Amino acid sequence: MVITLLSDFGDVYPASMKGVIFGIDPGANIVDITHSVPRHDIRAGAFILMTTAKYFPSGTVHIAVVDPGVGTKRRAIAVRALSLGGTHYFVGPDNGLLIPAAREIGNIEVYEISNRELFRENISGTFHGRDIFAPVGAHISKGLRIEKAGGRILDFKDISFGAGKKMDGSLHGEVIYIDTFGNIITNIPGGSVDFQSGNELEIDKIRVLFSSSYGFCKKGVPLALVGSHGFLEIAVNMGNAAKILRKKQGDVIIINFI
Amino acid sequence: MVITLLSDFGDVYPASMKGVIFGIDPGANIVDITHSVPRHDIRAGAFILMTTAKYFPSGTVHIAVVDPGVGTKRRAIAVRALSLGGTHYFVGPDNGLLIPAAREIGNIEVYEISNRELFRENISGTFHGRDIFAPVGAHISKGLRIEKAGGRILDFKDISFGAGKKMDGSLHGEVIYIDTFGNIITNIPGGSVDFQSGNELEIDKIRVLFSSSYGFCKKGVPLALVGSHGFLEIAVNMGNAAKILRKKQGDVIIINFI
Amino acid sequence: MVITLLSDFGDVYPASMKGVIFGIDPGANIVDITHSVPRHDIRAGAFILMTTAKYFPSGTVHIAVVDPGVGTKRRAIAVRALSLGGTHYFVGPDNGLLIPAAREIGNIEVYEISNRELFRENISGTFHGRDIFAPVGAHISKGLRIEKAGGRILDFKDISFGAGKKMDGSLHGEVIYIDTFGNIITNIPGGSVDFQSGNELEIDKIRVLFSSSYGFCKKGVPLALVGSHGFLEIAVNMGNAAKILRKKQGDVIIINFI
Repeated sequence: MVITLLSDFGDVYPASMKGVIFGIDPGANIVDITHSVPRHDIRAGAFILMTTAKYFPSGTVHIAVVDPGVGTKRRAIAVRALSLGGTHYFVGPDNGLLIPAAREIGNIEVYEISNRELFRENISGTFHGRDIFAPVGAHISKGLRIEKAGGRILDFKDISFGAGKKMDGSLHGEVIYIDTFGNIITNIPGGSVDFQSGNELEIDKIRVLFSSSYGFCKKGVPLALVGSHGFLEIAVNMGNAAKILRKKQGDVIIINFI
Repeated sequence: MVITLLSDFGDVYPASMKGVIFGIDPGANIVDITHSVPRHDIRAGAFILMTTAKYFPSGTVHIAVVDPGVGTKRRAIAVRALSLGGTHYFVGPDNGLLIPAAREIGNIEVYEISNRELFRENISGTFHGRDIFAPVGAHISKGLRIEKAGGRILDFKDISFGAGKKMDGSLHGEVIYIDTFGNIITNIPGGSVDFQSGNELEIDKIRVLFSSSYGFCKKGVPLALVGSHGFLEIAVNMGNAAKILRKKQGDVIIINFI
Repeated sequence: MVITLLSDFGDVYPASMKGVIFGIDPGANIVDITHSVPRHDIRAGAFILMTTAKYFPSGTVHIAVVDPGVGTKRRAIAVRALSLGGTHYFVGPDNGLLIPAAREIGNIEVYEISNRELFRENISGTFHGRDIFAPVGAHISKGLRIEKAGGRILDFKDISFGAGKKMDGSLHGEVIYIDTFGNIITNIPGGSVDFQSGNELEIDKIRVLFSSSYGFCKKGVPLALVGSHGFLEIAVNMGNAAKILRKKQGDVIIINFI
């Protein structure tokens, strides 16, 4: 089965998680989603997981660790997400990180991980990714029923990205992620956008062209488009939109139709 | 079978391509060549692919996406490259990116990808890597005959890196790639270089020692060598040759024998 | 079987090693430990390998290449490390890089790699990772007895990280690695540390709190903890300890109990 990994661990540390996984499930196909989530940024991690996990096949186990509370009393959880298209599993801390991605798949059931027989023998205070989440994920990938990880809970932490709204003829949203190219990804769902290619928009008095792709715009021109994640995105062809529009994660973004 | 990925997507985005691939071909061995090609730099991507793809076994499918024209009318292609050593496949945009690597393997046949049954159901305007190239590559890896992707074409786009020449007792070439260490890779094939280890050369009035390896030179000394890609390369032991010699991709480079 | 790769090659170059490996052992599970070891920094590479390799299952082959002497007369070695828990193999240059990791597993036997039949046909002067270490590692992974690589040697190069000591009521150690977050990892083994959570320490007149995890400290507060590698580590919650304490690899570190 496929096991994905997402974390803010940077280089080096994820390898020992893979060692632990292969010790339990030698047939796993391990895929790194990213290990460069901005450190301790649970919302950024949750957004990336939400927009990526759904492209994996049924049966995939997603181990995600952005975990500022590691070593404290925060709970560890395993989630089963069910839809007609199949089942995905999510393993990680109970801080909201996993929930938007799991809901994107379908109906979810959340279990508190408490079965210490699944853990590594010695649990470090700082690396539950290696000592708890990797072995639990590998056991689930190998066929362990998620109910064996621990009891079901209903009071898990949740995260919402909200959704942009129309107000006074403008679109009001929030910046939920800046990617490595400086593209600004908003919480405005593509489905609620009714612009046509070529329409002119305005953000903070900067003119922005609505387009269906980057390829239609000149270098340096700001454009708005429904990005590959399905949300309205502001980009600058061959440039950094976040710098040019001075936006960072969490900022309000107001798009006027001109 | 092995599937390689090369792109300018940076972090995060390649993972969803891998999800799509495993959904079609669960037995694939996926290898990232790099996702850090300088953005939209088709020549740099083509050079990396050309010098890397040939080390993979027969049957490998190389999916490469450096695609400034995504979402426009540029074609998508699949290439079969045949030699006595075996067959490689290449999948990506028709902008020249794939061709030098395919020719390096052997005789090539180019097909326009037009069979929409192979694509993902919803095609985004910006991410054909995930929606078209990944599924087509995975189907070929799983055994689909390349002819099923679309009709053969002869007017595909091509790229040439040229070849350095001897003129007036000097070697004249072009910088085709600067690697992450600042090593300057030229288009002068190793086979046309007849220097001996220890020969002194001169580039822009800077003395450069010809050597068979980095290990023979002192820290900070510029040296020329036939690099592991088979081309003449200028390096500085523990330093950045591109900065010291002020060279960038596309620059002319003239090497004098002194 | 699992094959791990560790190097200072950065982006791009490791891919051709993977191509060579899959050509020999199509069933290998290849894991990158890191390719961002500081260039030519054998001690940093040896530390990362020592603290990571042991998490992999019995039978794993670790190919590690930090090799400033590539192309010179330095020897290539293959190491078998045996313990009750199983067997690990290590392949790389004879410069000490492999030895601490192999000793961490158990008893070691070192063989000089001399059997040219295992190499690629053309050996470049600069990329033995691809031309020698990758094919030798892949053959061992596929079942080749290590004795077939070459004769046993006893005079291999070794590296020691020493061990911190108690002197005059202080702990004296050395900085052996700075990770990508700026955490300072010392050579003081966790087992020799008898602080309690909440104890106050002092390093270069900076107050440092001993803690069992990052999560208990406020942002910007320096803390000491036994890190996931089992060594005493100085960290700053959400900050860069190496910058704040002005420490670099090799520096002496003296920890006072106050």
